[in-house]
Amino acid sequence: MLDLLANKWSALAIGALEDGPQRFGQLRRRLEGVSPKVLSQTLRRLEDHGMLTRTVYAEVPPRVEYELTDLGHSASVPLKDLRNWVEENVPRH
Amino acid sequence: MLDLLANKWSALAIGALEDGPQRFGQLRRRLEGVSPKVLSQTLRRLEDHGMLTRTVYAEVPPRVEYELTDLGHSASVPLKDLRNWVEENVPRH
Repeated sequence: MLDLLANKWSALAIGALEDGPQRFGQLRRRLEGVSPKVLSQTLRRLEDHGMLTRTVYAEVPPRVEYELTDLGHSASVPLKDLRNWVEENVPRH
Repeated sequence: MLDLLANKWSALAIGALEDGPQRFGQLRRRLEGVSPKVLSQTLRRLEDHGMLTRTVYAEVPPRVEYELTDLGHSASVPLKDLRNWVEENVPRH
């Protein structure tokens, strides 16, 4: 699990999803530089580990939304600490 | 910097070094499953980012020790939170 969370794209995806359900395209824009393949793999791994749910709405075209589970929300706390630490310490370094 | 820290082996290496200076062999034993190549790369990246110092003692054979800098110690706080979260939540998941 540590290798799942101690991963840049997982940390950023969970961070983005703290604001609420997002679609793939929204996540892709927010995670600068992530490729669609890496983003799908990251989201699939997070889903497999119970961190988020993936809901397909039977619309035309179908809408897919990703949303943090309670476990995902609880993981977002230490991940936010890590991101804040990086933001506070990168200029100094 | 997030991709440096949001990395399993960086997180575990910093965690191991919280206990004080360690040699390569000690770190390798503590980071189960890490290959020497990946460990050296991880330690080099952490050194390049000012997280740890590498000291070579002119002994026979030469002794090399890795030690956290103040920046490394401060980064170990959110990383410890992340490791604790994983330990507390893996059984439940």
